[in-house]
Amino acid sequence: MNTEQKLQQYKDWVFRLSAYNMALAIIGIDKLTVAPAGGSEYRDKRTAFLAGELFTLETDPEIIEILKELKDDKSIDEDDKRAITLYYQNAMKTMCIPKDEFVEARELMNRSYDAWLEAKTKNDYTIFEPYLKKVIEIQKKFYGYRNCDKPLYDQMLDDFEPGMNQEKYDAFFDALKERLVPLIQKVVQAKQIDDSFLYQSYPVEEQKKFMDEILAYLHFDKDWGYQNETEHPFTSWTCENDCRTTTKYLKNNVASAILSTIHEVGHATYEHDVDERYDGMILSEGISSGMHESQSRLCENYLGRTKAFWDYNFPILQKHFPEQLNDVSTEQFVEAINVSRPSLVRTEADELTYPMHILIRYEIEKGLFNGTISTEGLDQTWNAMYKKYLGVDVTDASNGILQDVHWSDGSFGYFPTYALGSAFSAQFMHQMRKELDVDEALQHNRFDLCVAWLKEHIHKYGCRYDADDIMQIATGEPFNVNYYIEYLEDKYNKLYHL
Amino acid sequence: MNTEQKLQQYKDWVFRLSAYNMALAIIGIDKLTVAPAGGSEYRDKRTAFLAGELFTLETDPEIIEILKELKDDKSIDEDDKRAITLYYQNAMKTMCIPKDEFVEARELMNRSYDAWLEAKTKNDYTIFEPYLKKVIEIQKKFYGYRNCDKPLYDQMLDDFEPGMNQEKYDAFFDALKERLVPLIQKVVQAKQIDDSFLYQSYPVEEQKKFMDEILAYLHFDKDWGYQNETEHPFTSWTCENDCRTTTKYLKNNVASAILSTIHEVGHATYEHDVDERYDGMILSEGISSGMHESQSRLCENYLGRTKAFWDYNFPILQKHFPEQLNDVSTEQFVEAINVSRPSLVRTEADELTYPMHILIRYEIEKGLFNGTISTEGLDQTWNAMYKKYLGVDVTDASNGILQDVHWSDGSFGYFPTYALGSAFSAQFMHQMRKELDVDEALQHNRFDLCVAWLKEHIHKYGCRYDADDIMQIATGEPFNVNYYIEYLEDKYNKLYHL
Repeated sequence: MNTEQKLQQYKDWVFRLSAYNMALAIIGIDKLTVAPAGGSEYRDKRTAFLAGELFTLETDPEIIEILKELKDDKSIDEDDKRAITLYYQNAMKTMCIPKDEFVEARELMNRSYDAWLEAKTKNDYTIFEPYLKKVIEIQKKFYGYRNCDKPLYDQMLDDFEPGMNQEKYDAFFDALKERLVPLIQKVVQAKQIDDSFLYQSYPVEEQKKFMDEILAYLHFDKDWGYQNETEHPFTSWTCENDCRTTTKYLKNNVASAILSTIHEVGHATYEHDVDERYDGMILSEGISSGMHESQSRLCENYLGRTKAFWDYNFPILQKHFPEQLNDVSTEQFVEAINVSRPSLVRTEADELTYPMHILIRYEIEKGLFNGTISTEGLDQTWNAMYKKYLGVDVTDASNGILQDVHWSDGSFGYFPTYALGSAFSAQFMHQMRKELDVDEALQHNRFDLCVAWLKEHIHKYGCRYDADDIMQIATGEPFNVNYYIEYLEDKYNKLYHL
Repeated sequence: MNTEQKLQQYKDWVFRLSAYNMALAIIGIDKLTVAPAGGSEYRDKRTAFLAGELFTLETDPEIIEILKELKDDKSIDEDDKRAITLYYQNAMKTMCIPKDEFVEARELMNRSYDAWLEAKTKNDYTIFEPYLKKVIEIQKKFYGYRNCDKPLYDQMLDDFEPGMNQEKYDAFFDALKERLVPLIQKVVQAKQIDDSFLYQSYPVEEQKKFMDEILAYLHFDKDWGYQNETEHPFTSWTCENDCRTTTKYLKNNVASAILSTIHEVGHATYEHDVDERYDGMILSEGISSGMHESQSRLCENYLGRTKAFWDYNFPILQKHFPEQLNDVSTEQFVEAINVSRPSLVRTEADELTYPMHILIRYEIEKGLFNGTISTEGLDQTWNAMYKKYLGVDVTDASNGILQDVHWSDGSFGYFPTYALGSAFSAQFMHQMRKELDVDEALQHNRFDLCVAWLKEHIHKYGCRYDADDIMQIATGEPFNVNYYIEYLEDKYNKLYHL
């Protein structure tokens, strides 16, 4: 077979992969948004089978051989070479797992999701615990198959954020702890900001009407995006022109669905903006979980919680909720949505305490995989850590250990990227503000200018370059945690007149 | 291979088929409800590929050989024998088509749907015409591959309603024409019923709230069913506990979404009620299109348009729309939703003129396949036939030839089952009323008693018996069109005091 023939085989294979990936993405979105619960078992069994079909395709020895040859073939172009290298690396990780175990695990992950949802609804950790235990056992076994010298948890961290490990994350979190814990304590003792008006009754139907306006402001266009509702908001996509977001409305919290929507649209926009040449290929995806989270949290926090953003949008929100908000000024509203207060739920947390929520999960994950923490009584461990790091008492498992979906499908090593991504955002934002009058853009309904900057410097590359390289390209320097710390110090010192 | 081994192979194959069918069903529902239009081309290409994978599976020569042997194997049980025979028959129809042509056709059908939707939105038949033409050419070619002596259109009719052909449908429609056309004319000349209050402004949000109550009345349980919105309402399903319906709300028509919902729930309930032993097998499906339509139209018309149904539900509807309906009595409302008036849109048609809408489509389909009618200028042909059979002037293509989705994916031979199913309903209903006090049940929020009768006599069998046999089992006699005609004569003579 000559290079051209190999490339053709490779491209046909990429297309087939993309078809199965699309099917699984759509089935997944369906499950998490509208699919009737009664059909879960039937669907999950078949979804696992289809994941097995994809597994067979991904690990096809004939293709692996072609990938192996092509990745070192000097005659192919750089885009293909990069994609082939990534596919090859992924295949190496997958093919060490026996297929029947892989399929069985997929089915378990789906049932584990259902158990998590039931446990959360019923506020009962014991419903979820046996699944969590099994999911952890499976992950230990699967990572064990790789036969790699590194500690298991380091391998997991690296899967979500290539190049990262416990040593680097320890240093990262230590830096945060050192400077942020004292700041959090000062904020707790400062004069508190009144944000009670955010928690009046805000009928969901009216929230939805405002959401249509915010989605338009964010340029989340119906032609390529669709927003649904779910228990735990997420974003999923199949191609440039098909990105789905979800949100969750709370009647007694006007800011929750809005900020979660801006967050998810940040993810969706990233996927939408990747160079269309990469559609259907591995290059079309965001480069790492941290990079993805940097884009969602940049939109949510560094844009969506600013005064400039609300200079434009708050009068519109007031029109939808005159009774609740006519006596509130834009300044008051922006202060209220930036209130820092140690709390129970990560997704509702303010920017300052947010990394502490992540730190807790990181510590627990480390313990689960180095054997110092077990799933039995993990709810109590959780509660103790919330007391230690945030000083709050967890009142119920639904708002404690069961709040997040991620462990139900074995996504260990993922949470730390949430804090890392937030730190990436700070550095990107610092650069964006040098090159663009961000406030001017936000005040004048030109959110698209911010998106255009992100596209040009980050989004368009997809997986074409490593996260480190993209940081260098976009900001001219390597990642530096100080941008994040200084941003938080500056913001909260001002807000609380410290 | 012994029988047991063959059965195991067969069962594994059935499971794999059901997985692909599930994926295609969910992808299809997604496309028709929420998927962003911009991603259509990307998705359609991959959906067609997956349909090709299913095609390969369905026509696997090794399995076909096993089916062939098993269907005549006296040692296997009757359920399996029936299922194997049906799978074998389907495979024979599919395997004569070259796979690449099959995949290409699937992709075309998806693009044709998009073209139809665009044409309907823009009220421009010429956008859809080239697709319709190609779809017809493909169907001619595909049915040609079967190398069967019967006329192509007879084969199509038989696919949707086994045992039917043009001769039988001609006789059926002649009987309807003979007795119904004069009745329609008498009704047109009779004193007209005021139904104008149905067409006031009914805010869609409030319609949705009422819909939740109707769905509860119909026992369309969220645990096994989900209702979404779409341009052309349909029902789809993957198993007993996963049936999806869709509806479409019209602001200036309070009855439209309600009756279309009752109709679709009729389809969904049929699928839900099939014996759970058949889940994932071909036996789990409704036996024929006519039988399916008999269940949806029975719910919509023979139950949903009765006074007893609204004795319970109209006071609830009034609570949602007091301004619009407080001066209307239950009697007036029921008369209004039963008004017969020759009109343009099939799905909005009353029961009496409804079969004329079907007759028009049947005549056109016959013409398209015997070569006397072409797609060019078909909108004009359509309009002329509406003038001839219903005396109405078609004002725009969106409410004319473009109103229905069905031709976009090549479902020719399907429409006639709508009239046939309506006729089946009459005979079932005649029997149900002998065995159950239907009005008493409807008046007292016991719709479930009607559903239980349908389940016991029809639904539970799925594909286990032919439609003819089910008619005999349920009503004790063969199909007889006179039940339908007499029902309509009786109903409209009374309503219009003829």
